Amino acid sequence: MALPESRTLSLIFKYVDDHVLNYIELLKEAVAIKSVSCSPHLRDDCITMVKWLHCKLKALGVEAEECDVGTQTLPDGRPLRLPPVILGSLGNDPSKPTVCIYGHIDVQPAAQEDGWHTEPFNLTEIDGKLYGRGASDDKGPVLCWLNAIQAYQKQELPIPVNLKFVFEAMEESGSEGLEDLLKQRKESFFQNVDYVCISDNYWLGKDKPCLTYGLRGLCYFFIEVTCACKDLHSGVYGGTINEAMSDMVYLLSRLVDKDGTILIPNINNDVLPVTDDERRQYQEIDFSVLDYKTELGSPSLLHKEDKTKLLMSRWRFPSLSVHGMEGCFSDPGTKTVIPRKVIGKFSIRIVPNQDPIAVEKAVVDYLNKEWAKRGSSNKFKVSMVHGAKAWVTDPRNSNYEAAIRATKRVYNTEPDMTREGGSIPITLTFQEVTDKSVILIPIGACDDGAHSQNEKLDRRNYIQGTKLLAAYLYEIGKMGK
Amino acid sequence: MALPESRTLSLIFKYVDDHVLNYIELLKEAVAIKSVSCSPHLRDDCITMVKWLHCKLKALGVEAEECDVGTQTLPDGRPLRLPPVILGSLGNDPSKPTVCIYGHIDVQPAAQEDGWHTEPFNLTEIDGKLYGRGASDDKGPVLCWLNAIQAYQKQELPIPVNLKFVFEAMEESGSEGLEDLLKQRKESFFQNVDYVCISDNYWLGKDKPCLTYGLRGLCYFFIEVTCACKDLHSGVYGGTINEAMSDMVYLLSRLVDKDGTILIPNINNDVLPVTDDERRQYQEIDFSVLDYKTELGSPSLLHKEDKTKLLMSRWRFPSLSVHGMEGCFSDPGTKTVIPRKVIGKFSIRIVPNQDPIAVEKAVVDYLNKEWAKRGSSNKFKVSMVHGAKAWVTDPRNSNYEAAIRATKRVYNTEPDMTREGGSIPITLTFQEVTDKSVILIPIGACDDGAHSQNEKLDRRNYIQGTKLLAAYLYEIGKMGK
Repeated sequence: MALPESRTLSLIFKYVDDHVLNYIELLKEAVAIKSVSCSPHLRDDCITMVKWLHCKLKALGVEAEECDVGTQTLPDGRPLRLPPVILGSLGNDPSKPTVCIYGHIDVQPAAQEDGWHTEPFNLTEIDGKLYGRGASDDKGPVLCWLNAIQAYQKQELPIPVNLKFVFEAMEESGSEGLEDLLKQRKESFFQNVDYVCISDNYWLGKDKPCLTYGLRGLCYFFIEVTCACKDLHSGVYGGTINEAMSDMVYLLSRLVDKDGTILIPNINNDVLPVTDDERRQYQEIDFSVLDYKTELGSPSLLHKEDKTKLLMSRWRFPSLSVHGMEGCFSDPGTKTVIPRKVIGKFSIRIVPNQDPIAVEKAVVDYLNKEWAKRGSSNKFKVSMVHGAKAWVTDPRNSNYEAAIRATKRVYNTEPDMTREGGSIPITLTFQEVTDKSVILIPIGACDDGAHSQNEKLDRRNYIQGTKLLAAYLYEIGKMGK
Repeated sequence: MALPESRTLSLIFKYVDDHVLNYIELLKEAVAIKSVSCSPHLRDDCITMVKWLHCKLKALGVEAEECDVGTQTLPDGRPLRLPPVILGSLGNDPSKPTVCIYGHIDVQPAAQEDGWHTEPFNLTEIDGKLYGRGASDDKGPVLCWLNAIQAYQKQELPIPVNLKFVFEAMEESGSEGLEDLLKQRKESFFQNVDYVCISDNYWLGKDKPCLTYGLRGLCYFFIEVTCACKDLHSGVYGGTINEAMSDMVYLLSRLVDKDGTILIPNINNDVLPVTDDERRQYQEIDFSVLDYKTELGSPSLLHKEDKTKLLMSRWRFPSLSVHGMEGCFSDPGTKTVIPRKVIGKFSIRIVPNQDPIAVEKAVVDYLNKEWAKRGSSNKFKVSMVHGAKAWVTDPRNSNYEAAIRATKRVYNTEPDMTREGGSIPITLTFQEVTDKSVILIPIGACDDGAHSQNEKLDRRNYIQGTKLLAAYLYEIGKMGK
């Protein structure tokens, strides 16, 4: 069904098309701030990023508050102040519905020597792609909201909804402090929210837009093994102690097999069984296994490269990844060291109805048993450093309907309904605190390389994404409360 | 047998005692230059270090040449110019014996955040210990030679021998380029050498000096596994590919067990059997297992903490250490990345009569088989990045006799005759090129922490070490050619 033309949206879309270079300049400013939340030495940059955004929101007339959410405890025991969370409000018309928007402005680490072709904190456009850390995850989408609101204001059009903003700078590090804040403000800031919208994920492919109704959760673990009080020369000491690295690779090798099967007993106990209806839905989704494989550059995918099984493995089954090790020799070259202490790092993406507490217990019990089997005299510790539940919702409601209509207006196609393998731990909390429908509207494409080298956002997605969010506000305004 | 007092040595020793602060100042200068040979970005500092030493040698009247030894190839294929090797000569009296001295002025990496209590490149004295990277390995011992020669000159005493110097800045990275140079100069620079002396190892304990007649060799390996063309977000992609880290920890866990036994078949085939005579020698050595264990801070040592077995495991049996991994997430914090390519690093200390070529074959064959067993579709590569033979000699000759007499003069005790678990790959080449006796005279103590955090050289060892080398030159002068 074609939608009747909207004069409001025509004006908005024209304004957007006329201001592409301003939007790119704005994104360049945001990317330049190294707001890497997992690096304690870059904490000040995270705070700078919050202040930068606060300033931009003020310019749009948003009443915003920088909320202190306390301190985090680093793995070595030191406390570190968390960046403040921005809570903002724009509009208070009781006849309009209220939409709560969430985004994050912190990023994953990035360094040119890891294989970036451009300086990761200097937004660089090449062939219509805007390369830079955070361009797609999630500074670009956050700015799409700001651009959309500005377009309404500049065209002197009423914003069709009241807006509530929640912007944080700790998403890449478990959103520490945010959950408590949301719960505290349940009866005040969040009281009148009618819809929640989050733009912090990606299309399933490179061309077709989608809307997302489910996310996996995340349980992140540290394994610590200590063999000595200082790093040792492997020539002088090698052969006389059982080295921590040797225990560590043993433990890490007991977690997952080459087929991606998690070796931890009972880990899948609470995973919901696949229904026939679900299987049918997955079969209908537009997803090219070949494109996906090419994008990854992987010699071979798991699950015999079956489309449905691959999608289910990304969205509705848990997976375990070993990320790395702290304390080992990790530079180029040939250092002959016996590291005194190594911290192995892995995480499990969890799914409905897995509970982080139960997952933690299964992992800790298993590793304790494996450690006992190993019979090492070294010191060993395993801990879950953060755990967040998965989220899934029924998309048959007016929030999704508005987003479908907005997508058709901008992209002229019906979006696929997808789930997402990544985690936005706070999604579930938004649902609990507002008791309203939460939608994820992705802006970027599948090949944006979030968390990877050469992260980018296509210029097309940034600009059409701005229009998409403007159109979503328009459509949701028509839906009413 | 007490040695008759020597007027020459009394004068030298007095001069040394009067110039302690100058010597410490000199070592501070040397430590300040970050000559980390395994870090390509610090290559210029290695070259600066060579030039600094060249300048100091010139001041002593040494005729020195900076020999170009070409380029090395980095693991990523790029060529990198090697620092020049210094060849120097002092004295040409046909009536005196000629002693060839070797030392190195490059160092292992060091950073305060790794757990140093002081800035590693700022020599800092605390309670008679001189803390700084390279203080003991091997800048301190190199400067002991310079100090000793200067003392002869300032006291206007004839240096009792002709001297040849070989100083390099690539020892910590396999002495690349040096072996070829030594072989090229066999008939020229090295023609008249009568004795070779190397100061680049440590006492067995903290108090008793020793002389060293054996070293282990080193075979260093890289294992490379690649699963994708870029690092991936573990949420988005986890569950659909077999991750490189998972293969890597599997392979690394197949190398050595918790008792230090190397799991590679045939690896010990060529290790010389222990003789009864050898066993007796080991039993006589002054070595406190408890002190050693305390120094390491290890909960438990291997080999049931038996003294002889521990010493043999350090000196005359091979050992395998897993050093680390390049490409994995190694910073503090919780990055949720699937690394696209990881390079696992391990080395085997080899002993007489193991041959690096045979060790390489055993390792590569084994890992190829383990890889086939694993059945992974990822890309895999294993390579030996350098291999160096072990060295052992019969210490019953006048080179060792002179060093024993010198030790008695300075420390008033008979040195233990030891072997060393570490590797100075070039030792064997010196023996082959000169066909003369090679001795290792350690200057530092067992707890100096070479390659470790808080490397130090005791002020006592630096100053008495200067006297020891001066006395060695005196005694070897009396031995004649």
